[in-house]
Amino acid sequence: MSKSGSTKEKLVASARELFWTRGYSNVSVRDITGSAGVDAALVSRYFGGKQGLFEATLAEIPPWDALTAEPGELLKKAAESFAHPFDPEADVTNVFTMLLTNVIDPEMGGMIRELVQTELADPLTGKIDGPEARERAALLLAVLFGVALMRKNFRLEGLADKSPEQLQAEIIRLGRVALEIRDQR
Amino acid sequence: MSKSGSTKEKLVASARELFWTRGYSNVSVRDITGSAGVDAALVSRYFGGKQGLFEATLAEIPPWDALTAEPGELLKKAAESFAHPFDPEADVTNVFTMLLTNVIDPEMGGMIRELVQTELADPLTGKIDGPEARERAALLLAVLFGVALMRKNFRLEGLADKSPEQLQAEIIRLGRVALEIRDQR
Repeated sequence: MSKSGSTKEKLVASARELFWTRGYSNVSVRDITGSAGVDAALVSRYFGGKQGLFEATLAEIPPWDALTAEPGELLKKAAESFAHPFDPEADVTNVFTMLLTNVIDPEMGGMIRELVQTELADPLTGKIDGPEARERAALLLAVLFGVALMRKNFRLEGLADKSPEQLQAEIIRLGRVALEIRDQR
Repeated sequence: MSKSGSTKEKLVASARELFWTRGYSNVSVRDITGSAGVDAALVSRYFGGKQGLFEATLAEIPPWDALTAEPGELLKKAAESFAHPFDPEADVTNVFTMLLTNVIDPEMGGMIRELVQTELADPLTGKIDGPEARERAALLLAVLFGVALMRKNFRLEGLADKSPEQLQAEIIRLGRVALEIRDQR
């Protein structure tokens, strides 16, 4: 690996850790270069600036695997991906925390909303048959994010202590209602 | 109103605006006293320090009105209170944003989790009849927070544009399933 490659990677790793947990506006370029142990001038050289460095952390996020599920497996895959990966000790810099921290960021909120709309809500809408697909996709995301938020971030008794399997069963139960076609409108 | 009363109020108002939107750790006492236009020494005099000032902003939050609803009205009241009050322009410093911003705060996260557990989840559990009340209360909060998060913060198409009445109907639909007694466990 080239030297500049590894410096870039150090910058992206430090940027991910700080931007994703504290929010874009609350982190300075100097915080990141200090944590990475590299010269501050390299951020503009490699990434064009602070925002480019933030975007570099987003570029590494893999697509949501529920979006490649077979139609009949969509809800199950979605439930699995939200019931599983939250371990507050092992995984502080997960995508879910990044979204929460930065959707309320005064500078990056708009970009994060756009990201969730185009990368999660729109393709999910495309996978759902029938009328009102956009509303039903949004409600499914509300269930998924709500359960993850209450479990992982608020650590509510009755959710934090559930096994992934128990939690998936609850998400599927609620998700089915979210995805139901409404008869009255 | 006494002079010291109004200085205190200015401090609490500035503290609310900054702590609630940016998160406790991202705000300094100097940010608040600068914004309030008062001497920094007054924070320790009136509030015992930064944390005391944050707690003063929390002390003004009224109890959740769903908790005083008649049993049959609980879900309706809960849906109303989460479908209604979010106007990003008019009300930047609402309780919901405060909870989101500060539950991920490294210093205040624990206190916010405790607050949501004792002020929302525990009394809600007490109002729900039957087995597994704790789990069902937690799931109802997941639905409420999830819909509000996706509507207000992520502004997803299909939710952001719904009327409060339409949104309440969706929350009630999902909330009923959250509160259902499970037959299999």
